[in-house]
Amino acid sequence: MPLSSAEASVEPPSAPAGSRFLAEIREQPRALERLLEHDGEYARVAEVALERGATTVRMVGHGSSDNAASYGVYAFGLLPRWTAFRDSISLGIYYRAGLDLSGCTVLGLSQSGRTPDVVEYVEHARSKGAYTVAVTNEPSSELAAAAEAVLPLAAGPELAVAATKTYVTQVAAIGLLAAHAAGGGVLFADGIRRVASQLDELIPSLESSILTFALPFAFAGRMFVIGRGAEFATARETALKLLETCRLAAEPLTATDLAHGPVAALDPLFPVWTIASEDDALPAVVEAAARVREAGATLIATGSAAGAIGAADYVLPVPSPPSPLLAPLLSVVPGQLFAWALARAKGLDPDTPRGLSKVTMAR
Amino acid sequence: MPLSSAEASVEPPSAPAGSRFLAEIREQPRALERLLEHDGEYARVAEVALERGATTVRMVGHGSSDNAASYGVYAFGLLPRWTAFRDSISLGIYYRAGLDLSGCTVLGLSQSGRTPDVVEYVEHARSKGAYTVAVTNEPSSELAAAAEAVLPLAAGPELAVAATKTYVTQVAAIGLLAAHAAGGGVLFADGIRRVASQLDELIPSLESSILTFALPFAFAGRMFVIGRGAEFATARETALKLLETCRLAAEPLTATDLAHGPVAALDPLFPVWTIASEDDALPAVVEAAARVREAGATLIATGSAAGAIGAADYVLPVPSPPSPLLAPLLSVVPGQLFAWALARAKGLDPDTPRGLSKVTMAR
Repeated sequence: MPLSSAEASVEPPSAPAGSRFLAEIREQPRALERLLEHDGEYARVAEVALERGATTVRMVGHGSSDNAASYGVYAFGLLPRWTAFRDSISLGIYYRAGLDLSGCTVLGLSQSGRTPDVVEYVEHARSKGAYTVAVTNEPSSELAAAAEAVLPLAAGPELAVAATKTYVTQVAAIGLLAAHAAGGGVLFADGIRRVASQLDELIPSLESSILTFALPFAFAGRMFVIGRGAEFATARETALKLLETCRLAAEPLTATDLAHGPVAALDPLFPVWTIASEDDALPAVVEAAARVREAGATLIATGSAAGAIGAADYVLPVPSPPSPLLAPLLSVVPGQLFAWALARAKGLDPDTPRGLSKVTMAR
Repeated sequence: MPLSSAEASVEPPSAPAGSRFLAEIREQPRALERLLEHDGEYARVAEVALERGATTVRMVGHGSSDNAASYGVYAFGLLPRWTAFRDSISLGIYYRAGLDLSGCTVLGLSQSGRTPDVVEYVEHARSKGAYTVAVTNEPSSELAAAAEAVLPLAAGPELAVAATKTYVTQVAAIGLLAAHAAGGGVLFADGIRRVASQLDELIPSLESSILTFALPFAFAGRMFVIGRGAEFATARETALKLLETCRLAAEPLTATDLAHGPVAALDPLFPVWTIASEDDALPAVVEAAARVREAGATLIATGSAAGAIGAADYVLPVPSPPSPLLAPLLSVVPGQLFAWALARAKGLDPDTPRGLSKVTMAR
């Protein structure tokens, strides 16, 4: 498998474990600003989707890209009021179901643009009449070639195996596209710019305390991560960071799904990470957190409404975003930094998790 | 909260732990046969959906009901070639996104028919033009009253907190409805009947060995459960059974998602349960299993193609179904019986997991 120059470059061996991962977390505000330089391209893709009546959005991706797609359900649902969902990849490419996809916009999400079944899904969807759009950090990738339009993430080369700045830019990209489709692109872009400057304050402030914060979790083996609505994406991404960098069996759950079975597994050695943002789904998250407390589990509260979670054992608040749909850009950062710190506490290197490579060629 | 007579009845205190759960696993073939007595109702609902052009299927439910909905993506996609997806509940009821739902059939899935946000979603969807259908074991429930049509599961009273026969009948119900929509209801119903008789042989045969089989896992704390395509539903349901009855942090993953991060968490103490069925997605599952072996994790292979998983440490095969879409009715049974046996090995009572009640009123 040929490596791009970005992937082949190597940090000096003296760099401490996790230094790439941390550098890329820190770089997220700049990555968001670079994404905005492509605002015109986002506006044009939204225009084409509108012209073609392609107002059902099918999103495909794996790992962090699939987590960002969870956000798209809410961004498209709340802004242009379009139906958006994470589509089954295997239905198209393994089973060849052959659904008619006219009236659909397909977003193929892949940092590298090389995920084989995402490329294949996009090729198939294009042949079935969908408007296909590659959302990728590599605008000259196979995925970009397979799609009709390309939306660059412009995150810059991502060297740590665990995605951070490409996740945040994917979320922003999806939100920006949805906002343009609803005629609110300018306001949303301003919001992203404002979030970038909020992150410039948040990241150093969290960094200064997170190593100490993570220490008590050094021997935790499992965790639930709870969010609802637009923050379910954040719950999924936080859990994935912990799985891949800390080998923690972290499972994302919606606030309500927790009560439908998983709550039975909780005990005082089973911490629960809660993402609480100031939005209409907050009451469900507050209720779920109360169940967690009742089960005696250790409770960590994050998000702009972390203070609304009663009796949390640990609190990592983030500032209030300019609008609720921008919250996931802020609330994922405590999870990223916690993953970095916990990996350090466990003696693991979050830059190069065992068994993973930056580009996943698995089918 | 008033209890129905079924919920209020109590086993004699001398019954061994898990006896309700086991009795209901054993009853599944009969439950499937009872469902088929309502075949005409399934045919009629399919006819109405076709007449109304309501060929986009939005499915909502929590826990096992949501797992059954995962199956619907494939049943509707492969039989009538309709788009079906697990819809966001919070988009409709918390955020009041107000999407136009004409052209949609909504399946509200709830064993009890009392899950509050599913009832509310169905009421909201009906007001937005969807054809609303309650799929429930309680045809006189709130959910049934909220929907235009009711499809009974006819599973009989389910007393164990962890669902088994209502899950299997939900899967069969979704498949039967999809088959009727495609004009293949008679053949599919015959297939369900054939599966019921296969289960009559499979269940006693698995039961005789499963207690010994489960013993080595008595101290396992976490597990991944892998399936793809139609069997992703089985992976989700197997993981949920293990979480709620055995307090095992079991996480379901598609075969491909495993490689996008979670594989890094594996080690020899982290078992992976694989569902391998003879269908077009099998190569992805075989490839994922090879990655699991490479990571040194303990591998359990189930499903009709369990033999295709190279070097599995444990194998629990099931018979080949009459057609691939019927496989999930068979391949979930090893997981149910394993959950029963492992709970016994751990000294837990799978009939009444701590912190859960049969009807979950969480929002």
